Amino acid sequence: MTAAYTELERRFRRLSLLGEAAGILQWDMAAVMPDGGAGIRGEQLAELKVVGHEAIVDPRIADLLDKAERDESAALDPWRRANLHEMRRAWRHASALPGDLVAALSRTVSECEMRWRGARAANDYKGLQPLMQRVLDLTIEAARIKGQRFNVDPYDALIDEYEPGADAARIAAIFDDLAAFLPGFIERVLVRQAAAGPIAPLGGPFPAARQRALAETLMRAIGFDFDHGRLDTSHHPFCGGVPEDVRITTRWDEKDFTRGLMGVLHETGHAMYERGLPADWRLQPVGAARGMALHESQSLLVEMQACRSREFVSYLAPLAAQAFGGTGAAWGVDNLHRHYTRVARGLIRVDADETTYPCHIILRFRLERALIGGDMTLDDLPAAWNAGMKELVGIVPPDDKDGCLQDIHWPGGAWGYFPTYTLGALAAAQLFEAAVRAVPGIPAGLARGDFAPLMAWLRPNVHAKASSGTTDEILAAATGKPLGTDSFKRHLERRYLA
Amino acid sequence: MTAAYTELERRFRRLSLLGEAAGILQWDMAAVMPDGGAGIRGEQLAELKVVGHEAIVDPRIADLLDKAERDESAALDPWRRANLHEMRRAWRHASALPGDLVAALSRTVSECEMRWRGARAANDYKGLQPLMQRVLDLTIEAARIKGQRFNVDPYDALIDEYEPGADAARIAAIFDDLAAFLPGFIERVLVRQAAAGPIAPLGGPFPAARQRALAETLMRAIGFDFDHGRLDTSHHPFCGGVPEDVRITTRWDEKDFTRGLMGVLHETGHAMYERGLPADWRLQPVGAARGMALHESQSLLVEMQACRSREFVSYLAPLAAQAFGGTGAAWGVDNLHRHYTRVARGLIRVDADETTYPCHIILRFRLERALIGGDMTLDDLPAAWNAGMKELVGIVPPDDKDGCLQDIHWPGGAWGYFPTYTLGALAAAQLFEAAVRAVPGIPAGLARGDFAPLMAWLRPNVHAKASSGTTDEILAAATGKPLGTDSFKRHLERRYLA
Repeated sequence: MTAAYTELERRFRRLSLLGEAAGILQWDMAAVMPDGGAGIRGEQLAELKVVGHEAIVDPRIADLLDKAERDESAALDPWRRANLHEMRRAWRHASALPGDLVAALSRTVSECEMRWRGARAANDYKGLQPLMQRVLDLTIEAARIKGQRFNVDPYDALIDEYEPGADAARIAAIFDDLAAFLPGFIERVLVRQAAAGPIAPLGGPFPAARQRALAETLMRAIGFDFDHGRLDTSHHPFCGGVPEDVRITTRWDEKDFTRGLMGVLHETGHAMYERGLPADWRLQPVGAARGMALHESQSLLVEMQACRSREFVSYLAPLAAQAFGGTGAAWGVDNLHRHYTRVARGLIRVDADETTYPCHIILRFRLERALIGGDMTLDDLPAAWNAGMKELVGIVPPDDKDGCLQDIHWPGGAWGYFPTYTLGALAAAQLFEAAVRAVPGIPAGLARGDFAPLMAWLRPNVHAKASSGTTDEILAAATGKPLGTDSFKRHLERRYLA
Repeated sequence: MTAAYTELERRFRRLSLLGEAAGILQWDMAAVMPDGGAGIRGEQLAELKVVGHEAIVDPRIADLLDKAERDESAALDPWRRANLHEMRRAWRHASALPGDLVAALSRTVSECEMRWRGARAANDYKGLQPLMQRVLDLTIEAARIKGQRFNVDPYDALIDEYEPGADAARIAAIFDDLAAFLPGFIERVLVRQAAAGPIAPLGGPFPAARQRALAETLMRAIGFDFDHGRLDTSHHPFCGGVPEDVRITTRWDEKDFTRGLMGVLHETGHAMYERGLPADWRLQPVGAARGMALHESQSLLVEMQACRSREFVSYLAPLAAQAFGGTGAAWGVDNLHRHYTRVARGLIRVDADETTYPCHIILRFRLERALIGGDMTLDDLPAAWNAGMKELVGIVPPDDKDGCLQDIHWPGGAWGYFPTYTLGALAAAQLFEAAVRAVPGIPAGLARGDFAPLMAWLRPNVHAKASSGTTDEILAAATGKPLGTDSFKRHLERRYLA
């Protein structure tokens, strides 16, 4: 008999459904909501959060968890046991915080996110700072409480929400390794790319409607099913919704189609992970995506490993030429591939190429670690940002708009999230290397727009695993080793210096 | 001290926010959700409903209501006392039904609504019938339980959800009065309109984008604020969202702009009511719209009373001509006004003019009363529908698609809702008559697209009253009499036979 476990499944199903309702409201807020709806939307989201919070901290859940772990665990199959483990994890995070703090965080974050839009456009760091300070104070309060409760550093407690089991010390070691490798590597690539002469421009403008049509064609090639998802526009591209109804958003730039297009393919990688989660475990904690690093690995695997490969670009080039009426050598495979593998020291993280991107992340990791740890204040952020950019990327932002105001994450309350982007890039390289080793026909598939061989490998090895193991367990089973930097470095050297 | 009342306010605030979250999910389902999301959306909505249901039937609410009514009522000001009254009403409806039934209804209705879309397109009544039967059975079960509990007829218990205080006997009396008046009246109008010769056609096609632009201009004229609302497309036009973020939907027909445009103005009337609800009472039961009859009165007041008036059409005609490049007498005020006041015996309720519309409603009222009362079965519905159409409207549908399958209401679980359309039409005529009596400049305002005088009267007399009194109290205060048919008949005779 596993009565306690069964009752826990019923209760966590409700939590998942409440979370999904909030997810649709968040998509709506980003993609379609008029500005005047922001205030009440913040109240709606805060209330949903409090209702979910009250449901998980109900003393009955703690009793059920104790009972299931003590009396029923041995009778559970591995997935149910993993599910119980994930329930405990979710409970531990939720029960650490008082309901007032959860509600205040949700409300403040909604307000700060909306304010950030205007503040960024107006280059007004000082105008945003008081609200950011409230977000940061509440976040530190939450981190402090959780850190005490879990017996870890406050910042590690935040990271654990996004990437279970990760900690700042291991991340710092990985990032230091990259920080030792990348600057020299980037310099060599820049010299080599300069020597190759200028890349032919693609002209333009590129009407948004045509970009969208091409993007939809490529999404379908990857396997995206428009009966189970949408593509919309929003300020900051993201992948939301639920596995049966995945909501991708992007931005279209009529002067340059290459970025928006690749952004859509990136989000499609996220979407394929969600779509591939096991239907049998829908609405249970074990059935959810493992963590943000593995999630990002799926978007970066599609974008960086697959879609910026020479093979895929050979499929894309004629389609793009046809979509935009492009002719001549500029629209050939060689030149388009140079566009898609161009390395540059830039100010903006979301526009960064895969070699400089980790430098942006290392900067943010170091800054948020200091802010959460109390080693730095928001007064110092702009100057520290600029100093870090100079050190890691080699350039200095002329203003905060393209400096410390560029990301929604901190105003949005997502502290401890940034490192997962680069952990994901490392995992993507490691997984793609293993996939191609196991299925040598994958690159040839990409050259004809056929993602089926790649997805056929990813589905059982990553997507369908959901949260049945840790990130390292999933990676080790799929690639033979835990997360590391070797595959990523090999990938960069092969693509940029071979 | 009014501690119990204050705690009730806190708890009903949560219920409102949960309901609003569900409302956004419903808008999403109708306006943007891909079909593949329907199953899980039904689960999300059902769970939100169950969570709200559990919150309102919490025994603590019953205790608080008892205590507030017994000990605190005398200390409350009239709005708080009305709020307490509305809380009791909501509790009475919610606590009557077991949670299982509430969840089953929500889930079945979501499924049936989705199925209805395909069944209507395929003219497949038999295909929809089993699912409709499940909806009807669950609805009868709910009506029976509530009827016993409130000591009223089961169908009256359903009506009371949409139009508090209304009952089938009074509605039948009003509808019999109309049924005695309308057929003869319609016949006279048809003879007169036939004698006036054919109406000049407006040509076409009318691109959806231009219809939309014109609709937005008119919405702004009425007072719609796009910082606090949206206009989208959906299968069945409706007004959803929340007062700070009103979501109107419509359908565009490129062969005929007149219907879609008027549909938008109709929904704008609903939106103005929501926008005009008192901000001080947001999220409290007393702060919500009074009922569906008064809600429909606001849409029909804008559409039928204001926007189909000669005065408004004189403002509209040149704008429409400009929007679609129309020239000549067909686009003059006279001819456009003939389009907008044309009477015809038609099959489709939503396309019916204001003289035949009540006949469609009387049919539905009689049929659903019989279905809920067990005097008729779904097997008999198509034939009974066709017989009723012949009797009341004077024509017979060639198929169920344009017969008993045309409305989403029954598949959608909204039994007892239909009568409110015609109660609303009566209230609209009564309110507009009183408004013009009080502010004689209103028609001249409409002639220049200025709705400010009309809205300035409606806001304090209807919108801001919210649920502080009954429909009849609000109508009596605004017009000097409870709901009746006199103003409506006067309006019809003046517009169509003067």
